Amino acid sequence: MFNKITFFILLSLRHQNVLKMSLVVVGSMAFDAIETPFGKSDKIVGGAATYIAWSASNFKKPVKQISVVGGDFPREELDALTDRGVVLDGVQIKKNEKSFFWSGKYHMDMNTRDTLDTQLNVLADFDPVVPEGYQDCEFLMLGNLVPAVQLSVIRQMKTRPRLIAMDTMNFWMETATEDLEKVIREVDVLLVNDSEARELSGQYSLVRAAKEILKMGPKFLIIKKGEHGALLFHEDQVFFAPALPLEEVFDPTGAGDTFAGGFIGHIARTGDISYNNMKSGIIVGSAMASFCVEKFGTQRLREINRVDIDERVQEFVQLVNFDITLI
Amino acid sequence: MFNKITFFILLSLRHQNVLKMSLVVVGSMAFDAIETPFGKSDKIVGGAATYIAWSASNFKKPVKQISVVGGDFPREELDALTDRGVVLDGVQIKKNEKSFFWSGKYHMDMNTRDTLDTQLNVLADFDPVVPEGYQDCEFLMLGNLVPAVQLSVIRQMKTRPRLIAMDTMNFWMETATEDLEKVIREVDVLLVNDSEARELSGQYSLVRAAKEILKMGPKFLIIKKGEHGALLFHEDQVFFAPALPLEEVFDPTGAGDTFAGGFIGHIARTGDISYNNMKSGIIVGSAMASFCVEKFGTQRLREINRVDIDERVQEFVQLVNFDITLI
Repeated sequence: MFNKITFFILLSLRHQNVLKMSLVVVGSMAFDAIETPFGKSDKIVGGAATYIAWSASNFKKPVKQISVVGGDFPREELDALTDRGVVLDGVQIKKNEKSFFWSGKYHMDMNTRDTLDTQLNVLADFDPVVPEGYQDCEFLMLGNLVPAVQLSVIRQMKTRPRLIAMDTMNFWMETATEDLEKVIREVDVLLVNDSEARELSGQYSLVRAAKEILKMGPKFLIIKKGEHGALLFHEDQVFFAPALPLEEVFDPTGAGDTFAGGFIGHIARTGDISYNNMKSGIIVGSAMASFCVEKFGTQRLREINRVDIDERVQEFVQLVNFDITLI
Repeated sequence: MFNKITFFILLSLRHQNVLKMSLVVVGSMAFDAIETPFGKSDKIVGGAATYIAWSASNFKKPVKQISVVGGDFPREELDALTDRGVVLDGVQIKKNEKSFFWSGKYHMDMNTRDTLDTQLNVLADFDPVVPEGYQDCEFLMLGNLVPAVQLSVIRQMKTRPRLIAMDTMNFWMETATEDLEKVIREVDVLLVNDSEARELSGQYSLVRAAKEILKMGPKFLIIKKGEHGALLFHEDQVFFAPALPLEEVFDPTGAGDTFAGGFIGHIARTGDISYNNMKSGIIVGSAMASFCVEKFGTQRLREINRVDIDERVQEFVQLVNFDITLI
């Protein structure tokens, strides 16, 4: 009898573990060439999923990656991710094609940038295939990508992940509205920046924009405001996390993705999808983003460890902590 | 013997009370005509000192006002302030002149505005006289005004107030640099907005700007960022308070002055000039500013009471409150 029960418990645990235990990340892995008021990078490795993986892997391993790269994508970059605990079974390598390339130039305020060049290359006809080993996905992070690709990944999941978070951008609001709305309907957490929230909702006030967007499907909305911090909306509640005031924002590329990686990494590590824990996730995401902007590309993210991250999170606590007694 | 001691204690208390117990506010009392995307006001009562007084008098009475108005300034406006606990002995009324007038138009983002008209009128040759009854000034709030006028008030104080806070604007940085630097050297707390902090310091990064400005004299620097909150810098410490996310910012005129009024009112009420209490002051200031923008001019400030304010402060606590445990 005892054995039978033990067996069923083990079976049930194994079943749970197989079905629901990993963090899957979808997004671009690419090359960027960046110009900021502080300098100019060569063609360096970037892409939403790259930043998300570097960031999230501080908190949760493995991170199971879905992406596509060309034959030009450096083998050592893939190896570095593997060493970090990122599974690349879902990353297609198209030997005879080129990786996605983006080039941009930031202005002094670092909140606005001009795109100088975009070459879709392998992204143009990316058809993601979710490996069987990814079916244990508990947390799915859809990085900014063609909405149809994001949707395809959701559809390929045999059981729905416990939490689906999604990033997107204004480009898809203008060119793939219908697909985008379909994906948004299916996710739990949507991440956009302030101008995207305004565009998506047609409302200038972010509070009103949030109300409209929460009607579109997501239960949680995160509005990223760059150096002005981030807002989390859920039902009638709102939470605000500042960005860390920095002496120098060297390169903001990937800061939003790094934020998303920290956020979903924290949620995946804790397994707690409550509103309260999402607040903590946003603090972790903000801390990660504050590292990202200190150097070009993913460089700073490769240098830091959990001690650095814990210290930075403590800086956030100091930054917003106050006691008040009114009479 | 007992009587003698009591007498000395009373004398000493009286002495203290006479020398140091009140809040003095210096600034303009004026007319504004305001256009926002939501509507247009008539010529309504405004001015830095007006907003500061309406805001601060929630926390500390009396507020002793130093200003100048023309014969056109409505008697009932002065009476309303008197009823509120604002002493007007230091407000000069120039019967045959006109009050300062400003007219402006806000854009959709409410952070930028065009000045349509400025008529200095009585402000052109304002020579402030500090009444004898104001010599008990413990807290001095210098609202935005000609630096020479701010300096004159400081000079007229027979003993230095315990805390001097000062607001200013970019206009004086460009037209009265030397005088402005003199005043800044003498104050404890400087309040400026982000673009003014950049202009004053010649630094784009607000963290660097703060370092430069703290070398100019003030021990505390508050950088107001409008809808993006406010930062407090002191030595190597930094505190951030968000602005309350509002559905509608109806009219931002006077929000900065209302913020200053809430800040100095809280400090004066508690008598605590520590860094920690300044953090609370900034939350109170932010709460007051969030009321100010809900209606044209000072209207909303006249409607609210301490219960409303306490509730709003609690909203700030909810807005930034988080628990985090990292492992």
